[in-house]
Amino acid sequence: MQIFYCEDISGKKALFSREESGHCLRVLRMRRGDTLTFTDGKGNLYNGVIDTDDPKGMSVTITSSKNDPTPRNYRLNVAISPLKNEERLEWFIEKAVETGIDVITPVICSRSEKKSIRRKRAEGIMISAMKQSGRCILPGLEEPESAEEFIRRPAKEKRLIATCDSSFDRIAITEAFNRGEDVTILIGPEGDFTPAEVQAAISAGYVPVHIGTGRLRTETAGIAACCSVYLANI
Amino acid sequence: MQIFYCEDISGKKALFSREESGHCLRVLRMRRGDTLTFTDGKGNLYNGVIDTDDPKGMSVTITSSKNDPTPRNYRLNVAISPLKNEERLEWFIEKAVETGIDVITPVICSRSEKKSIRRKRAEGIMISAMKQSGRCILPGLEEPESAEEFIRRPAKEKRLIATCDSSFDRIAITEAFNRGEDVTILIGPEGDFTPAEVQAAISAGYVPVHIGTGRLRTETAGIAACCSVYLANI
Repeated sequence: MQIFYCEDISGKKALFSREESGHCLRVLRMRRGDTLTFTDGKGNLYNGVIDTDDPKGMSVTITSSKNDPTPRNYRLNVAISPLKNEERLEWFIEKAVETGIDVITPVICSRSEKKSIRRKRAEGIMISAMKQSGRCILPGLEEPESAEEFIRRPAKEKRLIATCDSSFDRIAITEAFNRGEDVTILIGPEGDFTPAEVQAAISAGYVPVHIGTGRLRTETAGIAACCSVYLANI
Repeated sequence: MQIFYCEDISGKKALFSREESGHCLRVLRMRRGDTLTFTDGKGNLYNGVIDTDDPKGMSVTITSSKNDPTPRNYRLNVAISPLKNEERLEWFIEKAVETGIDVITPVICSRSEKKSIRRKRAEGIMISAMKQSGRCILPGLEEPESAEEFIRRPAKEKRLIATCDSSFDRIAITEAFNRGEDVTILIGPEGDFTPAEVQAAISAGYVPVHIGTGRLRTETAGIAACCSVYLANI
């Protein structure tokens, strides 16, 4: 079942974006009177009937709402370094949304090769991935922040920092959290976090973890971390 | 530490391919007398000294050999449907090699949108991923085969078929195998396996599994399956 996305909902009326309207009416040739299912990205799923078929702004009347078909009982925040090859990070973002994530935070680390991300592209990828995977939560994509500041956020959840540096006493990521627990995971740049960064995170309450002996690319480590949480909760 | 790849080894002489030779000598400006570390893709890691610096075929004298720094105590074969978007399958292949895999088999299923893969590209991606992730096993990339034939292979390992079809009694993939166990996992096309295909696999000894409630793209399901095995063994 195809799920659409609409963030502009008022009472029983949903006003679709130009992009989504064009897709429904021009590409899929939907018409007045047709029904469709859509999410607001906030955990709600609606059924509705198309009442105006203006490709610049399609209007839908909501007929019923449903529970989130893919609810999660945990919150996941992955803070990950931007990458020189932006496509790789975008690939991570897509897969993170598919497996279920609440917040993605680009963090600028000492060895980060880039300090920004292609935000508009990332947002488009997240909306598409949410719709395609039948999910109803559009994850938050925060503005880039330094790792130094990020670790200072007050937190209640389990916080992990993944590093290849074996001089730190790391546990396997799979042993570092429990099913149903909220988790924040820090993933560093291709050159890893510096020892000072790891130490600062530990002092701030982060648990140092490893994701196996493999030398994973940043986006692969990010996906493996997301899968670790996803699989612990299936 | 950068690892190179050479499959042509005879006694203490290693003859590098034109591509790898060009990379070492022209791009990295290495010279006669320089040392380097390389793998044969068969689990062996060697140290050697460059003795002829011909960019068409660099020759290296082996000075010592090392154990595989990333040994695995399990074999993993993922049989996955080719995809209409070949780049997506190539992402899967790269990530599968990074997390550790022995054999990748393209399987043609009832609903497969494509019956072939870009073999040369895939092989290049596999070699790069092996080198970059510090691994010494170059996984096998088999020729495409029908799912029907694939499931008939005699097998001793645990065999799993991932499907979204809840009419089958599926267990979570995480519960379907043990640490250290050899596993073969079947991943279907975007439209999933047909009920007949799942039934045939079950009759042949496959255990039907789910990879959570999320509706994952084929390549994402493939990565999640690889991560499931990788993480169970870290």
